[in-house]
Amino acid sequence: MKGTVLYGPGDVRFEERPEPKIINPTDAIIRISAACVCGSDLWPYRGIHPITEPTPMGHEYCGIVEEVGSAVRTVKPGQFVIGSFFASDNTCPHCRYGYQTSCQHRELVTTAQAPMLRVPLADGTLVATPELPPGDMIPSLLTLSDVMGTGWFAAVAANVKPGNTVAVVGDGAVGLLSVLSAKQIGAARIIAMSRHATRQKLAREFGATDIVVERGNDAITRINELTKGIGADAVLECVGTRESMMQAIGCTRPGGYVGYVGVPHGVELDGEKLFFSHVHLHGGPAPVRRFLPELIDLVWKGKINPGKVFDLRLPLDQVAEGYRAMDERRAIKALLKPQNQGHGRQKINAT
Amino acid sequence: MKGTVLYGPGDVRFEERPEPKIINPTDAIIRISAACVCGSDLWPYRGIHPITEPTPMGHEYCGIVEEVGSAVRTVKPGQFVIGSFFASDNTCPHCRYGYQTSCQHRELVTTAQAPMLRVPLADGTLVATPELPPGDMIPSLLTLSDVMGTGWFAAVAANVKPGNTVAVVGDGAVGLLSVLSAKQIGAARIIAMSRHATRQKLAREFGATDIVVERGNDAITRINELTKGIGADAVLECVGTRESMMQAIGCTRPGGYVGYVGVPHGVELDGEKLFFSHVHLHGGPAPVRRFLPELIDLVWKGKINPGKVFDLRLPLDQVAEGYRAMDERRAIKALLKPQNQGHGRQKINAT
Repeated sequence: MKGTVLYGPGDVRFEERPEPKIINPTDAIIRISAACVCGSDLWPYRGIHPITEPTPMGHEYCGIVEEVGSAVRTVKPGQFVIGSFFASDNTCPHCRYGYQTSCQHRELVTTAQAPMLRVPLADGTLVATPELPPGDMIPSLLTLSDVMGTGWFAAVAANVKPGNTVAVVGDGAVGLLSVLSAKQIGAARIIAMSRHATRQKLAREFGATDIVVERGNDAITRINELTKGIGADAVLECVGTRESMMQAIGCTRPGGYVGYVGVPHGVELDGEKLFFSHVHLHGGPAPVRRFLPELIDLVWKGKINPGKVFDLRLPLDQVAEGYRAMDERRAIKALLKPQNQGHGRQKINAT
Repeated sequence: MKGTVLYGPGDVRFEERPEPKIINPTDAIIRISAACVCGSDLWPYRGIHPITEPTPMGHEYCGIVEEVGSAVRTVKPGQFVIGSFFASDNTCPHCRYGYQTSCQHRELVTTAQAPMLRVPLADGTLVATPELPPGDMIPSLLTLSDVMGTGWFAAVAANVKPGNTVAVVGDGAVGLLSVLSAKQIGAARIIAMSRHATRQKLAREFGATDIVVERGNDAITRINELTKGIGADAVLECVGTRESMMQAIGCTRPGGYVGYVGVPHGVELDGEKLFFSHVHLHGGPAPVRRFLPELIDLVWKGKINPGKVFDLRLPLDQVAEGYRAMDERRAIKALLKPQNQGHGRQKINAT
């Protein structure tokens, strides 16, 4: 089969790769229905996280189970499944507390921009949909693998409650889906921070009530004005720089909550500022596995449509264009569809 | 009257000072029954926080109301009262959320190591005891003004629940009273980190079940062993250095809570470590005003005796020895008792 490999900054290739096989009895092989490019893929693509060798890419995925190892009990061939970017056993103490991305046996999934994928710890990692989904639901289901689960975690980590005033730092796909999450949970006011017209528009569609274009201290001043000098109850940090973190902390009222899901890059937090800010801080790699049953249900019932975040859809073999478009901010998020697949054929196999 | 003034590193003087007067109609004047030296007083005493001019000292206090301003409604002369180190109106939005130390009109109390004290925003700041307390209860009531309220906030910020495994970083007075707080809330296991025999003893008396003498990474390894590789549910950080913060974060299980109340000195937190630790972080200057009614009740009913933390009691005019003894770690905490006072006389006035 052919899969996606990053060779260096800006150099994405779609090239021959070995087809994945069952290695451990807890593995599953899935035929990818759709994958996508993640904002975090852009760090090595831009050379900010250097890579030392050609590196297969992709950690957001959904598809049809093709084969399972001998120890797999709950996942069955023919099912449509979604999994997290971290495989987890879902039984260790950390998993039981709901932090599956800190699973004692976690394994990063890294080769999902391909037609076939090996998923370790299949029973703990994968969640099946009630039945095979209609094709137009697949983009929304795909987002649950990372980007929507991460936006949702930002809102959960920031303790968003019905009636809250929420601010969102970052207008990437995660930031936009954080807006959707806050709306779904019942926030009364959602302030999106964005200076891009298309992203502002999608933010409003997802539930933003206000747009703030300022950044840094000016943004803090603006949020302060909008909240009558109090600050937001919850701020969702979806960028991962020092500036965005300090902006998030500065926008939060004393006793309020910052949920941060942007992977930090060179962030050193000023302990004294944090101390006197009186905020609650929680975040990290989103334990999307925790939220999969609930979010699948919301998508299945048509209550949320996070798939709208894909404004570019490409055949998988054009993956390089997906990276380019996101790098140049021409696209918010690129969906990749392998050829010769689709669950039509699988449906026949399964029935 | 005479009061305490710091002139520079190691130079504490007890010297003539103007007697406080009502300045604003919301003020009260109280006659101090007992004051004390705070761990945070040692920062300027040691020259680590330089001072630029002779500085009156003291922010922990309790005593008898002598006089109130014309706008004071709930506090009355003759009452025994306790207040926080930050005066607060207790009506602004931040106060209503329980963050009185972030009150929009807060004022730091800084002259309490003296026989008389002006307390701003008296109605919002001071809480009276049900009646005049017996003399042997005064040390415990005094701790509610800061050190016990701060230890309690560490436990509340770290979300301590009955049955939890709790670790406490720091064996100063706040650390020891954090142990007491965790015990009172119902923690099943309380691991105190201390290498000083007298402090270990008091920690055990307050409820510690385990003592860890290691520091830094060795302490993290030890806590990991004690918790079967999981980490503590809640860690109470009561020091305020970068090392103690990273130790606290490292001892906490993913999804667990760090409550931090040590005033940070030159702390820069590694954002990436924090992110992947998956901990909740909350703290800041303890809103002791929030806890005063509950903690007064616990002391009044004899359920807690935080006054044990005072292992040195001095007449106020020997305040310099109190600083010296705490600086040299000969004393955990020094209580200061003004002469010619005591609520005996006040009691007669009040009845």
